[in-house]
Amino acid sequence: MIYPVILCGGSGTRLWPRSRKALPKPFLPLVGERTLFEATVRRTIDPEFFASPTVVTGAAHLAHVRDQLAPICAGTTIVEPSAKNTAPAIALAAQSMPRPDALMLVCPSDHYIADVSAFQDAAKRAAALAEQGHMVAFGIAATAPETGFGYIRKGAALEGGYEVERFVEKPDLETAIAFLADGNYSWNGGIFAFRADAFLAELAAHRPAMAEAVRVSVDQGETRGAELYPAAEPFAAIEGDSIDYAVMENTQRAAVVPVSMGWSDIGNWQALREARAGDAQGNRVRGRAELVDCKRVLVETDGPRVSAIGLEDVAIVVDGDEVLVTTMAGTQKVGKLDGAANQ
Amino acid sequence: MIYPVILCGGSGTRLWPRSRKALPKPFLPLVGERTLFEATVRRTIDPEFFASPTVVTGAAHLAHVRDQLAPICAGTTIVEPSAKNTAPAIALAAQSMPRPDALMLVCPSDHYIADVSAFQDAAKRAAALAEQGHMVAFGIAATAPETGFGYIRKGAALEGGYEVERFVEKPDLETAIAFLADGNYSWNGGIFAFRADAFLAELAAHRPAMAEAVRVSVDQGETRGAELYPAAEPFAAIEGDSIDYAVMENTQRAAVVPVSMGWSDIGNWQALREARAGDAQGNRVRGRAELVDCKRVLVETDGPRVSAIGLEDVAIVVDGDEVLVTTMAGTQKVGKLDGAANQ
Repeated sequence: MIYPVILCGGSGTRLWPRSRKALPKPFLPLVGERTLFEATVRRTIDPEFFASPTVVTGAAHLAHVRDQLAPICAGTTIVEPSAKNTAPAIALAAQSMPRPDALMLVCPSDHYIADVSAFQDAAKRAAALAEQGHMVAFGIAATAPETGFGYIRKGAALEGGYEVERFVEKPDLETAIAFLADGNYSWNGGIFAFRADAFLAELAAHRPAMAEAVRVSVDQGETRGAELYPAAEPFAAIEGDSIDYAVMENTQRAAVVPVSMGWSDIGNWQALREARAGDAQGNRVRGRAELVDCKRVLVETDGPRVSAIGLEDVAIVVDGDEVLVTTMAGTQKVGKLDGAANQ
Repeated sequence: MIYPVILCGGSGTRLWPRSRKALPKPFLPLVGERTLFEATVRRTIDPEFFASPTVVTGAAHLAHVRDQLAPICAGTTIVEPSAKNTAPAIALAAQSMPRPDALMLVCPSDHYIADVSAFQDAAKRAAALAEQGHMVAFGIAATAPETGFGYIRKGAALEGGYEVERFVEKPDLETAIAFLADGNYSWNGGIFAFRADAFLAELAAHRPAMAEAVRVSVDQGETRGAELYPAAEPFAAIEGDSIDYAVMENTQRAAVVPVSMGWSDIGNWQALREARAGDAQGNRVRGRAELVDCKRVLVETDGPRVSAIGLEDVAIVVDGDEVLVTTMAGTQKVGKLDGAANQ
C-alpha cells in the first residue's frame, strides 16, 4: 500500500494574473477540466495500491483543499503552522503516518502529468525500491535542455531503477544541452518515495534540529476530524529547507526511477501552452476570443473578449483588473512584474 | 471671413474598441487632452479670420456635438436627416450660409493636425483662391507611400497654390512609392475651400437631383435655436456621394493648396501611435501599465492594468469588456473583427 502525500505549499507568481495569492496555481483548472490539485489526487485513487492521501497545506489554502478534496475522496489534511519549504512539510506527514514503515509517495500538487498509467507504473517501481530502504526520486525523462530544473545523474542499475550518482543544480544552457545529449540525466520533478521511518532517520541524521522540532510539533498538535494542526511554536523555530538539500543530496541510499509521463511543472505561461492541445495554427484559447493571422498564441480570459491580430508566440491573459501580454520568451519574467510581486 | 464647416459623420471601426458607435473617434481625446472634434473647432477660433463654425452631424452624435461645442464657442449645427456621404452634407451647409458668396472651409472632425499655424496659413491661401471661384483642396505633403489615401497631382502654379492636374484614387504600393518620389503628388485629406455659391453651382451642374433635393430639404427644414433640421423626406431620396466624386473630380476650377502641417487621419492604431509622443523606447502608454523589454508598443486602457513583456510594434487596447492586441501591421484589419463589425 502506497501513502500519497500531496504538497500544497507556495503561491507562485509566474502564472500571474490567473494564479493569485488567494487562488493559486494548484487550485486552478489550467489543463483540462480539473484543477492540478484534483488531478494530483485522482492519480492516486486506486484502492488496490494507494491509501487515501495526506495533504500538507497552509491555513491560507485550507478552504480550497477542503472544497476540492472532499468530492473526490476521504483524506487527511495537515495544516502547516508556517511555510518552511518541503523538508519540514514532508516530515510532518512522515510523523503522522499510521505506521512507521508506511511507503510514502510525495507529490507536488501543481504539476501536470499527461500519462497517468506511466505515473502509476513508476510509483509502483519506486515503492518497491523504497520498501528496501531506498530514498527514491522520480527521474523525469528530459525532453529539452531546460535550465530551470535540477537534474539527476543515474548510476548503477537497480531493480526498477538506478542508484543516484549525483543530484545536479539547475545548469546553464550549455550544460543542459550536454545533459540532454548524454542520456544519463533526468529532471528532478520533486516526486519522491520512501518509507516514513527511513525518511525520518535520514532527517534526524542530516537535520537533527528540524527532525526534533517536527516531532514535537506533531506531538503537541491537535486533531480536528480529518485535519491535523501541528503546534505552531516548535515549528516556527525551524530553519526551512528543501528535501533535496536536507535529505536527498546527503543520503547514501538515493535511487532514481526513470519515467516518461508527459510531465510539466506548468512553470510559466509557455509551459502551460505546451501542456494544452492547440488548434491547426497552434493557438490555445480559453474564454471569448477572436484570433486573426495568429500562430501559437495562448489566450486565457475570464470574461472580456480578446481580439488578436498578427501575433506569434504571444500569451494574452485577462483576469479581473489585470491584462498580461507577453512573448513566450518573456514568460520567464512574469513573476517579476509589479502586479505579480505585489498582489 | 472664412466660414468653417465641420463634418461629424461616420462612425469608423478601425479604432475599435476605443471608438464605438455610441462614442466614435471625433469625440475621443485620442491625441493630447482634447478630443479631435474640439481641436478641429479650436483651429478655426480666430475672429479676425474665421466666422463661428457650422457643424454637420447626425442625430446619433448630436449630444456629443452639443456637449463639446458649447464650451468652446457659439456655432450652428445642422442635423442631417440621414447619412448620405460628404457631398450632401456640405451642400446642406452651403444652402445654410448667411450669404451666397460665403467662403466655406470644409474640415473633417476626426483628423489630427500638429501644426495649427500651418493649417491656418493654408486656410487663408485656400480662401484667397476660393474667392476667385476656385474649388480648392488642401494638398497634404506626403511623408510615406500611403496606399490608403487618394492623391492630388498639381498642375500649373496659381497664387498660393496650383491648379489640380488630376485627382488619383488610392494607389497600389508601387504607384504610391512613385508618387512620393515624384514630388508633384500630395494627399487628399478631405479639407476643401470654396464659395458656397460656387459649390452649389458645381453640384447643380454635376449632381442636379442631389442639389435640388438638398435645396428643398433646407427650405422645408426647421430651425430650433442654433440647430437646423433639414426635412427628412427629400433628403432620404438622395443618392449619397462624396464631394470628391460629385464635385472635385468634375469641376474645371479645381485648385490645390500644398501644406505640411503634421497631419494624420488617425486612421488606425498605428497612425494613432505615430501621432503621440513616445518615451525613449518609443512606447506610448495611456492608463495603468507596466512595460518590460518593450519597444514601440502602444497601450491604451480605460481601467485594468496592462503588463507587457518583450513586445515590439504591438498595440494593446483595453476598453470595457473588449481587449484588442494587434501587431502594427494588423491594425489595418481591426475594422473587420467581429467586435468592430457587430458593435
